[in-house]
Amino acid sequence: MERHHFEEELQALKSRLLSMAALVEERVHRAIQGLIERRAEVVQEVAVGDKEVNELQIDIDDRCLKLLALQNPMASDLRLITAAMKINADLERIGDQAVNIAEHALRLIRLPLLKPLIDIPRMAEMAERMTRDSLDAFVRKDAAIARSVLTRDDEVDELKDQLFRELLTYMMADPGTIERALALILVSRSLERIADHATNIAEDAIFIIEAKDVRHHHEETLAAGSGG
Amino acid sequence: MERHHFEEELQALKSRLLSMAALVEERVHRAIQGLIERRAEVVQEVAVGDKEVNELQIDIDDRCLKLLALQNPMASDLRLITAAMKINADLERIGDQAVNIAEHALRLIRLPLLKPLIDIPRMAEMAERMTRDSLDAFVRKDAAIARSVLTRDDEVDELKDQLFRELLTYMMADPGTIERALALILVSRSLERIADHATNIAEDAIFIIEAKDVRHHHEETLAAGSGG
Repeated sequence: MERHHFEEELQALKSRLLSMAALVEERVHRAIQGLIERRAEVVQEVAVGDKEVNELQIDIDDRCLKLLALQNPMASDLRLITAAMKINADLERIGDQAVNIAEHALRLIRLPLLKPLIDIPRMAEMAERMTRDSLDAFVRKDAAIARSVLTRDDEVDELKDQLFRELLTYMMADPGTIERALALILVSRSLERIADHATNIAEDAIFIIEAKDVRHHHEETLAAGSGG
Repeated sequence: MERHHFEEELQALKSRLLSMAALVEERVHRAIQGLIERRAEVVQEVAVGDKEVNELQIDIDDRCLKLLALQNPMASDLRLITAAMKINADLERIGDQAVNIAEHALRLIRLPLLKPLIDIPRMAEMAERMTRDSLDAFVRKDAAIARSVLTRDDEVDELKDQLFRELLTYMMADPGTIERALALILVSRSLERIADHATNIAEDAIFIIEAKDVRHHHEETLAAGSGG
């Protein structure tokens, strides 16, 4: 495969990863919107499964393996392709969290509203944005965006802790709220996990952009190895 | 690098992954034992951080990148090495869960015992065993062991749901138990996540052993691509 064709294949790979990210982000969004609007049919669609996500994941993995199978990929291409495989796995797990959220949401919708949802939609918006930005950082090789994702992860954690304390107060005051409060706590944990995956993706992006800085890799050693 | 040397490097890689697995499993074990024996100093050690895990993770990733940088790795080697990178990431996240468990355990140890711990130690034992077996399956290319890990994941989920229902009853009956019950629920979620990571590792093992069966990959296409 010539360099020209190789570059085209890399572009195609990046474009698939963006599609995958958009798909799982959309699923998280629908699960949360369905919860907010208390529309079981919207949530149910997300809960049913993620066949499309799984198919895209396998397609992306295949593309990565094929690109790695080519002769003499450069060290920077190797890092890019292996990072793509890791990012692919993180995106698939964000998809899994969308299913988890949908399952908790279905339980919540069947019960009376505990309180107007304020922190959950904020956390969801942050986690979705982090997912989008981490992919942008990877595709555009933009370390500044990637670093901003790392910062926002701490904010999501703070929101999660704040919501936890608030819901604990509800539960202590009225055991009748326990089931709903627990479901909300678990939704917030899923959102936290999504933010964690976005953070992993951002770290992978930083790794391929600034190999030496972030994880103390030695470009020289790697390049020396690539001669065979 | 000659084939002989390459095989040696692959063996070294597998051996590092086994060390990494043993290390994170040991950390999970200590967090849970410390919780059971209510020994804050044991738990504290786990909570403080996992520098050793992180160093080993970077070392393993480096080894994988160097092996991938060699000319003409065969399709089966590519699958093995990229699977090793994914497994490495899963093991690191099992290490993260050990830290999470330790943090909940520190809170639990400061409070009076809610009830004798029965399900948590069982779940922990299963999750630890699953981690060990998934790695064994990968290293020995034993699909039967790998499949047994997948089966056990469902058992862990059942234990988690059973414990959740039991703790919900405690909370409903006595709001004074809420904080401890919640911490136990979160410990059980961490154990569930460890079992999930072990399941991912087992799936990767099955993928490299029986590429066609499990994820509908096409060995032919891949092999055709490796010519460049």
